[in-house]
Amino acid sequence: MGERGLTEAEVIGVIRGMASGPLSGVRVPIGDDAALVSFARGDALLTVDSIYEGIHFNLDTHQLSDVGWKAVAAGVSDIAAMGGQACYALLSFGFDEPPAPEEVRGLTTGALEMLASCNCALVGGDVCRSRGGLAVTAAIAGTPPPGGPVLRSGARRGDAVCVTGDLGDSAAGLHILSRKDDALRAAFPRLVEAHLRPKPDVLAGELLASAGASAMEDVSDGLAADLRHICEESRVGAEVGEELIPMSAELVELARAEGVDPVEWAFAGGEDYGLLFTVAQRDLERAGEALRSHGIPYARLGTITGEGGPVLLGKDGASRDLARGGFDHFA
Amino acid sequence: MGERGLTEAEVIGVIRGMASGPLSGVRVPIGDDAALVSFARGDALLTVDSIYEGIHFNLDTHQLSDVGWKAVAAGVSDIAAMGGQACYALLSFGFDEPPAPEEVRGLTTGALEMLASCNCALVGGDVCRSRGGLAVTAAIAGTPPPGGPVLRSGARRGDAVCVTGDLGDSAAGLHILSRKDDALRAAFPRLVEAHLRPKPDVLAGELLASAGASAMEDVSDGLAADLRHICEESRVGAEVGEELIPMSAELVELARAEGVDPVEWAFAGGEDYGLLFTVAQRDLERAGEALRSHGIPYARLGTITGEGGPVLLGKDGASRDLARGGFDHFA
Repeated sequence: MGERGLTEAEVIGVIRGMASGPLSGVRVPIGDDAALVSFARGDALLTVDSIYEGIHFNLDTHQLSDVGWKAVAAGVSDIAAMGGQACYALLSFGFDEPPAPEEVRGLTTGALEMLASCNCALVGGDVCRSRGGLAVTAAIAGTPPPGGPVLRSGARRGDAVCVTGDLGDSAAGLHILSRKDDALRAAFPRLVEAHLRPKPDVLAGELLASAGASAMEDVSDGLAADLRHICEESRVGAEVGEELIPMSAELVELARAEGVDPVEWAFAGGEDYGLLFTVAQRDLERAGEALRSHGIPYARLGTITGEGGPVLLGKDGASRDLARGGFDHFA
Repeated sequence: MGERGLTEAEVIGVIRGMASGPLSGVRVPIGDDAALVSFARGDALLTVDSIYEGIHFNLDTHQLSDVGWKAVAAGVSDIAAMGGQACYALLSFGFDEPPAPEEVRGLTTGALEMLASCNCALVGGDVCRSRGGLAVTAAIAGTPPPGGPVLRSGARRGDAVCVTGDLGDSAAGLHILSRKDDALRAAFPRLVEAHLRPKPDVLAGELLASAGASAMEDVSDGLAADLRHICEESRVGAEVGEELIPMSAELVELARAEGVDPVEWAFAGGEDYGLLFTVAQRDLERAGEALRSHGIPYARLGTITGEGGPVLLGKDGASRDLARGGFDHFA
């Protein structure tokens, strides 16, 4: 690194300088025991996510700015999955040795880039020593949509099951990074970007809440796990068709070149951050039109059934129980 | 441990079961992408703190319930230091291997005990794999006092500098734990408890905000560092007297037995969670009466001066610059 490590107070000073500026709704910014913020209607959505070096990222494949981006994107996506808007972020950095100024600036730059893209303000945080590598936690507070948040528990029998965007690009990007093959990386830049800089689907969440989506969740643990969450909370089943899973041309091309079944990536916990949603048949056209009018791609995967959890109908006509599968940190 | 480690979904299931029950202001509890909560007046205080195994605690001296308590106490104390009330908590657990059910229950029990003591609800969180040991982050959201929060920046020349409670008990407790001497531990149970189960001074914060304290901060980094924060943010100096530092009889007795200067502990970053506050001379009697009427001990340490940061006036008549000192994670 070549630079002297910063003290805790100096780290906070660097972050505070970068986050400064007048911020709507922020009454007491970074620099006191806690931040004071305002929620116009009094209701707030709250979420927290942590990422650890060696588990969620590696510093030989991720730049520090990618780590900062990734740390806050998870919470912004959680808020989007309720149909809400992220407003305020707190960051907790754990460094296993005193960081260089450039390290703090890199992490903070990436976090601020992600937050700026959705008008979310960095209002506070914590800096301390960790063990076993860099650890970053982001807590995000946001506002729910005017009609109330879209929950996981609202899916009803007969509802359409849909997803925004393509599935698996992030997992495919992780595959490329883990191969450490510069030519492969250069050939599929969009897949790598999908993994390093995942983009929460904030506008889609807002549109779908307004259009009457009955249940919603961001695709963060993989299609199987996330669909299972909706089925469990809604006490329903679901049938989705393997041939209906939206996959990008790049993903299919990479899968062919690497000898991988592309559906594996689509099902992996690759943090695609598209939105998995259900919508009653009577609202399906309205929801689709709202997304199309903003150029947001989506696909219908299947239908909510009465019971029994999620089932995948394969191309070969066989059906596969999705009650297991998807990403579980300890499974 | 003897028990199979839990999956991520099972960990969340255990925590969700323990945190259940009707909770005031909680509209969507644990189990969705984010929690939905209400702030009666629309304003919220937000803070986040992380603790790491081997840095902030050791599992040979801390029970898991102590770790859970400690993780949330820091944020509750931050909110108290603004004069506010903690309302909602989010917990992020990082385990370096799949945890046993008893481990999850232990951590969660301690966190819930701390939160219950101040009517704060556990509303969400995150569970994932970490490296280098157990990591716990707590994000706390609360409400500011009706007259607005007490900031670090409000101290004015001539204000009294005071602190609630005794200083150094937590650092003395840490000293006992690090000695791994059961007899010593048995002889000073209150000091050990002060370190393992620090109690945020929520009522004192509320009373002092109402009584017109001009600046306030919780004693979490040590008297020198915390007083320096107030001086920097308020652009003032301060003179505090060494002989005025409130110390418990147990601490003085332990210091004598161990051959340590007790003032070292009082200045150490031992997370005493008393409140360091300043108050104008005209409000001093009112603030003191408010604390006395609730049986909350406090001491006047000195006076805010015009400039130059904090200075300690020693018993020997010499003065010592406090511009450095206190706990810095990387210093």
